[in-house]
Amino acid sequence: MDWINILGLVAGVFTTIAFLPQVIKTWQTKSAKDFSLGMLITFNIGVFLWLIYGLYLQALPIILANLVTLILNGIILSLKIRYKS
Amino acid sequence: MDWINILGLVAGVFTTIAFLPQVIKTWQTKSAKDFSLGMLITFNIGVFLWLIYGLYLQALPIILANLVTLILNGIILSLKIRYKS
Repeated sequence: MDWINILGLVAGVFTTIAFLPQVIKTWQTKSAKDFSLGMLITFNIGVFLWLIYGLYLQALPIILANLVTLILNGIILSLKIRYKS
Repeated sequence: MDWINILGLVAGVFTTIAFLPQVIKTWQTKSAKDFSLGMLITFNIGVFLWLIYGLYLQALPIILANLVTLILNGIILSLKIRYKS
């Protein structure tokens, strides 16, 4: 594997695991008022479309990265709705 | 252009413009305490790596999507730091 593919994989790992500390923080503080609901909904739709795109191309890195991102952002969206005052 | 490329472009537009309402909300409320600093830093690094990846491949959709995402998330990160109490 050449360095450009490694760069792409590292980039994918960063933009995917980034949301794990956010899930933990939101879960612990039970506060998500600073999040834009429009951002969360639009982002989740976009990641879902990326997942469909990856499934169609049978591209495992795209599938895995977007599946994990969708799960983590789905949790953040559900916490946002649950803690909405 | 076939439908799979259109799907990828639509997905890219969604995951990019998603952050615009977030920038507007954070700018207006001047509050970003619910955001995980670790998430913002990790995500910005990842998007920057995607940008380098796209520049190397000379792939305009990857370059454009990640450039706009980096600008918007860079603004959110800078607001998070500015409004940190």
